[in-house]
Amino acid sequence: MKSGALKMSWARQYMPVLGEIRKRFEADKPLSGTKIAMALHVEAKTAVLVETLAAGGAEVYITGCNPLSTQDDVAEALNDVSGVHCYAKRACSVEDYYEAIDKVLDVNPTVTIDDGMDLIHRLHTERRDLLDSIVGGCEETTTGIHRLRSMAAEGKLEFPVLAVNDTPMKRHFDNIHGTGESALSAVMITTNSLIGGKWFVVAGYGYCGRGLAKMAHGLGAKVIVTEIDPRRALEAHMDGYHVMTMDEAAKIGDIFVTTTGNTSIIGEKQFKNLKNGAILSNAGHFNVEIDIEWLESHKEGFEQRDGIDTYIINGKRINVLAEGRLVNLAVPKGMGHPIEVMDLSFGLQALCSEYIKNEGSALSGGVYDVPNEIDVAVASLKLKSLNVSIDALTEEQKLYMNSWDIGT
Amino acid sequence: MKSGALKMSWARQYMPVLGEIRKRFEADKPLSGTKIAMALHVEAKTAVLVETLAAGGAEVYITGCNPLSTQDDVAEALNDVSGVHCYAKRACSVEDYYEAIDKVLDVNPTVTIDDGMDLIHRLHTERRDLLDSIVGGCEETTTGIHRLRSMAAEGKLEFPVLAVNDTPMKRHFDNIHGTGESALSAVMITTNSLIGGKWFVVAGYGYCGRGLAKMAHGLGAKVIVTEIDPRRALEAHMDGYHVMTMDEAAKIGDIFVTTTGNTSIIGEKQFKNLKNGAILSNAGHFNVEIDIEWLESHKEGFEQRDGIDTYIINGKRINVLAEGRLVNLAVPKGMGHPIEVMDLSFGLQALCSEYIKNEGSALSGGVYDVPNEIDVAVASLKLKSLNVSIDALTEEQKLYMNSWDIGT
Amino acid sequence: MKSGALKMSWARQYMPVLGEIRKRFEADKPLSGTKIAMALHVEAKTAVLVETLAAGGAEVYITGCNPLSTQDDVAEALNDVSGVHCYAKRACSVEDYYEAIDKVLDVNPTVTIDDGMDLIHRLHTERRDLLDSIVGGCEETTTGIHRLRSMAAEGKLEFPVLAVNDTPMKRHFDNIHGTGESALSAVMITTNSLIGGKWFVVAGYGYCGRGLAKMAHGLGAKVIVTEIDPRRALEAHMDGYHVMTMDEAAKIGDIFVTTTGNTSIIGEKQFKNLKNGAILSNAGHFNVEIDIEWLESHKEGFEQRDGIDTYIINGKRINVLAEGRLVNLAVPKGMGHPIEVMDLSFGLQALCSEYIKNEGSALSGGVYDVPNEIDVAVASLKLKSLNVSIDALTEEQKLYMNSWDIGT
Amino acid sequence: MKSGALKMSWARQYMPVLGEIRKRFEADKPLSGTKIAMALHVEAKTAVLVETLAAGGAEVYITGCNPLSTQDDVAEALNDVSGVHCYAKRACSVEDYYEAIDKVLDVNPTVTIDDGMDLIHRLHTERRDLLDSIVGGCEETTTGIHRLRSMAAEGKLEFPVLAVNDTPMKRHFDNIHGTGESALSAVMITTNSLIGGKWFVVAGYGYCGRGLAKMAHGLGAKVIVTEIDPRRALEAHMDGYHVMTMDEAAKIGDIFVTTTGNTSIIGEKQFKNLKNGAILSNAGHFNVEIDIEWLESHKEGFEQRDGIDTYIINGKRINVLAEGRLVNLAVPKGMGHPIEVMDLSFGLQALCSEYIKNEGSALSGGVYDVPNEIDVAVASLKLKSLNVSIDALTEEQKLYMNSWDIGT
Repeated sequence: MKSGALKMSWARQYMPVLGEIRKRFEADKPLSGTKIAMALHVEAKTAVLVETLAAGGAEVYITGCNPLSTQDDVAEALNDVSGVHCYAKRACSVEDYYEAIDKVLDVNPTVTIDDGMDLIHRLHTERRDLLDSIVGGCEETTTGIHRLRSMAAEGKLEFPVLAVNDTPMKRHFDNIHGTGESALSAVMITTNSLIGGKWFVVAGYGYCGRGLAKMAHGLGAKVIVTEIDPRRALEAHMDGYHVMTMDEAAKIGDIFVTTTGNTSIIGEKQFKNLKNGAILSNAGHFNVEIDIEWLESHKEGFEQRDGIDTYIINGKRINVLAEGRLVNLAVPKGMGHPIEVMDLSFGLQALCSEYIKNEGSALSGGVYDVPNEIDVAVASLKLKSLNVSIDALTEEQKLYMNSWDIGT
Repeated sequence: MKSGALKMSWARQYMPVLGEIRKRFEADKPLSGTKIAMALHVEAKTAVLVETLAAGGAEVYITGCNPLSTQDDVAEALNDVSGVHCYAKRACSVEDYYEAIDKVLDVNPTVTIDDGMDLIHRLHTERRDLLDSIVGGCEETTTGIHRLRSMAAEGKLEFPVLAVNDTPMKRHFDNIHGTGESALSAVMITTNSLIGGKWFVVAGYGYCGRGLAKMAHGLGAKVIVTEIDPRRALEAHMDGYHVMTMDEAAKIGDIFVTTTGNTSIIGEKQFKNLKNGAILSNAGHFNVEIDIEWLESHKEGFEQRDGIDTYIINGKRINVLAEGRLVNLAVPKGMGHPIEVMDLSFGLQALCSEYIKNEGSALSGGVYDVPNEIDVAVASLKLKSLNVSIDALTEEQKLYMNSWDIGT
Repeated sequence: MKSGALKMSWARQYMPVLGEIRKRFEADKPLSGTKIAMALHVEAKTAVLVETLAAGGAEVYITGCNPLSTQDDVAEALNDVSGVHCYAKRACSVEDYYEAIDKVLDVNPTVTIDDGMDLIHRLHTERRDLLDSIVGGCEETTTGIHRLRSMAAEGKLEFPVLAVNDTPMKRHFDNIHGTGESALSAVMITTNSLIGGKWFVVAGYGYCGRGLAKMAHGLGAKVIVTEIDPRRALEAHMDGYHVMTMDEAAKIGDIFVTTTGNTSIIGEKQFKNLKNGAILSNAGHFNVEIDIEWLESHKEGFEQRDGIDTYIINGKRINVLAEGRLVNLAVPKGMGHPIEVMDLSFGLQALCSEYIKNEGSALSGGVYDVPNEIDVAVASLKLKSLNVSIDALTEEQKLYMNSWDIGT
Repeated sequence: MKSGALKMSWARQYMPVLGEIRKRFEADKPLSGTKIAMALHVEAKTAVLVETLAAGGAEVYITGCNPLSTQDDVAEALNDVSGVHCYAKRACSVEDYYEAIDKVLDVNPTVTIDDGMDLIHRLHTERRDLLDSIVGGCEETTTGIHRLRSMAAEGKLEFPVLAVNDTPMKRHFDNIHGTGESALSAVMITTNSLIGGKWFVVAGYGYCGRGLAKMAHGLGAKVIVTEIDPRRALEAHMDGYHVMTMDEAAKIGDIFVTTTGNTSIIGEKQFKNLKNGAILSNAGHFNVEIDIEWLESHKEGFEQRDGIDTYIINGKRINVLAEGRLVNLAVPKGMGHPIEVMDLSFGLQALCSEYIKNEGSALSGGVYDVPNEIDVAVASLKLKSLNVSIDALTEEQKLYMNSWDIGT
């Protein structure tokens, strides 16, 4: 077996939810006649989703959503799958990146699947001619959804998009466990740094942030949380973490991970106060949370190796991982989210693709929640694969839950 | 100082949020002319809320919401506070209990504050004559809110009620930390049982349940979670707990705590499979989660001491705490929620009372969310008391958050 | 059943190790002809040890080892057990306390069991006439052992004493889990204070200290550790705690627990810097770790309730639990160590009593380690009661472990 | 800077203890005239130790202690350091491996530093002619020490060896934190597997095992511990883990890590019961804990990639990492122990080398404990680098600790 196929074989064994869905897709071909355009991180787990969609009868056209996250051997293996066309290339130029996006769109897709709304953005700006044939789309990230909602609020989103990120499943598993474990292990393996005893700074106490805080804490770090929302700040405090402003954290922190989805979280003001040897990384979607531009234009010295750029500022070493890009994907050793987590997220994607294909034309432009029954179905498939049984409400209990005059 | 006053003095030092509110209330008297009817657990922390409301100019009439949670010395001390009338008595009969509720209602209150909707239930059944003078109410518990929503759905709720339980603040602090810590310490101090190494069964993985699971886990227990929702079940699984049905858990568990808000969670079927020495307790609102009635009618032997009833069933000892009532309040050594948690919940209550007094007459009957700004205000007061500073969005960041065409 | 007997019935169900030993003792009467003098905390768990020793044929004479830890109903129940004589009384005067110790010694015991070397100290000072008839003794506490070693080093210990505290079993279970859980729950239930988010100061990172640190951390506290040993200090640091001097901790801490076994850990210098509302408690053996004397002579005001003394110093409230005595025993709601932990410690005591009775006369004066096989036997009895099986070395593995020329 | 030098520059910034020692060594040249033979993992952290020893005036001759752990670029960089000669090569043949060991010995060293007693073993078998010139040695691993003690017990160890592994510092930091974090992150990054919710089996509850258990637990795993010692088994149980035999664990486990230092921990009997997709790895010293030989001779199918060998046995996939070698070093992405941990271990090595050079000739053959003051000195250097201050005993406290007649 070649390396890309070996990677897919590895991933497949830990993706029981997609495995169950594939069985049904292979039998029923519910996606026949659908052309799916995808812009996702092209690596082994995504490939298992792609082959699942193809097994359901879809033609799949895929490119990357980040220049550094594509694995070329997996891209090659995907092109061997019947019904799949992959255009992603690692470390391609910006021009090549958009050219690949255009190739994916050139086929006149009916359904889009995005991780950061690259396809949808392109369709609403440069490729508006294609909007008509789109039945609907799915978006994977918090950041993408947030921006789609802004777009919808301005009345500018022209087809229905399922907010795959916004389901309870996605929030709890992909964000808390997926980002938590994978960003932490990426930092550990890249820096060879101890976590125990360290001051570990997490910017943002959303789902990604609380996953990271919990994991780092579990390894013995002293966790600092920065926040803008007083309630989340207080939650972090009562969960045992240290809450302070980023200005204060900058002076204390050993390792920083940003998860805010916002821009300029660590910038000039903080850089000047960092301790020698401070490690900065980003687990939010875009590479805007650390102000790399400032560092590039003010450094006194520079060392570069294996996903780490060391800037010398005021005689102190500031170490930035993966150029401030998504650390769990963009460092050389990064593997992205754990396989089992992507099995859940991509289980949702597979079922959402089927839903949008069937129901999309009945919906107007806007952002839609994933239907609750899809979310529950994925959880149930996973529990089944774990041989975990749970309780069901008895008739007596259903009655009790719906009454207001029993029990006093 | 007498014992009730000493208890209030103790509580007051750990309630900085109510302290700040009281300063403003004393100066501005925003509750002048309001008659507040309350049915809450009458103990020291509640007493600090009551004196805060009275400081704001209200006349307060209060009774208990549970026959076993009243502390008579605190009730006595409350009657010494100007503007306050307390009718609660510990271990009173059911008749006395409702008589006290009626006394509180007899004054023609304008605002109600409930912990389990006793007052609202009474007003909508036996005392409908008083409904007209009510401006609105506040309800403290999940269970109460749940039933109020059923009532509203049937069109039977005649005045506006603020769902104080449903705010992010209340869920995170009162349910997770309040119930978590206090139910656990009540079980520990009542049973003298070790937690480390034990199979600790938590029924329900809502906010109360996950607080308890986390705390017991933090002491070294092996935590079992039972659930009816596949997604919550999967969350519990990935958080490191053991998910199974209550039937399975019954055979393994050492210590059980129910937090479902539903009825008959542990009953005949489970009782017969429990291990000798199993400890059963309830941290949900009503004493219906453990089927005490069945135990009472099938026991072979019985020992009773200090909040523990030991039933002998099939030759094995089943130990039930506090007759299946709220364990953190109803065991003899129970102290209820930690003071700092009630400072937050009662800070909300104080500000909600002010809001409902001012805005209630403009609202129709139904259940209302607590206004977001009240929730945030309480969090901010608490952070201030902790000397914790947090970040604020810069103009650049606000712009970024609201745009959809920057960053790609 | 009367209250003392009910308490013993409760404890017995969670003491499977003593239960197994009692079966053998009842059959074989290995302690026939032995007079055992004991000074232990007289409560239900101790009572189960006492009845076990009596079941083995011993005559047992017991008094308390702390004026505040005796439970009078248990003392009464013990006097109903055949072969047992109990002289302990709660809250007795210092004179009565020593009179009871003398009564226990008056019977000319052959074996002593101490918790803090009260009996041994008395025998080596006021009652040297009785030394001749003593075969040997057992000491339960770290502090007692420490002082016995000093005594032995000076050649002044006249009979053999088994250091029951110094076994791996005792250190890990009694100190880490026993003190950890019970001191924490005693503080929680006495103060009604939240642990989550608090600065929780543990003085000393020995076994008791690290138990407490881990448990408080597990509930969400930010743990501060003070130490005098750089290695233990560094361990605490890497375990995720904050290490600093007590002078620094005094300014930050919310809740303090001392576990050093030493004197004057928190005194004038620290008192003056404490935050308003600071809570001080002691989980070490003697009430010398907090300088109560200074507080008594410098207080501006005072409130006293339920195991809490509030001193007003420089206008700030300092809250001391249980007068600085062992907090898990001496607060009114204190239950001492968890039952299961004492089952292990008292299992050791029972087997050590048997050993010292049989082997003591062959040993010269001094402190002796508990024979390893006794320690292992207790662990094995406990595992058996839990239905836990473990591996055994294969012949191949034994060979490998003992060779130095295999494997390279 | 070339890649080896960049790696050393990276490591150096997180090794403050070696940094402080180097300053003194450079000034005083305490190792002048010493020839040090070393067999250690040749990577960046070791290189910083080597340059420190060379800075102290030693001539250093070094080779690897494991064919897969050498980093060739670091070996090259070491040869650029004045006074250092490096013979290690990655993935060399067994012959080349021993040839390199011989080259190191050919120089007639006076001091040896071993990681697994390769040099000492060779000196006592093939190269006995060189024994005379050796002043003494240092051994880094538990396994090495264990075997040296067997050797010494047989009277066959001919020079003094400091048991660097056996100090409190080494046990707590290198074993608990070093192995714990690095083995876990190596497993995570190699398999891309989620840890949360998994059954994570740790064989052996020594220091390495409890580090791993704690870390995996901290990420949400359900930890199973296998043991042969009832006391350690019970400790694991009370720490919240599941204790069982390896036979039982084999049927349940998702991820296995062996840490016993013994042989054949997972073999035929277990292989046949593993779940499909089980992941096996070893964090003990030698590759004997998993019976690779059996797997090689019974496999039905095989896939090989990136440090993972997948054997198909009875139709199920068994995934073995790094051929059963030390997983944190031998997987392609492995980085070995965290830098800060090796700073402590190598700080000990540096001071022990100095000690053995000065004192070795006065000692007879045997295994010696590291002098306590060296252990304390390293801890103190580390605390100083962290700006952590700790308490010192007062005169009053010293007196109290040494007396047995104060306090009752």
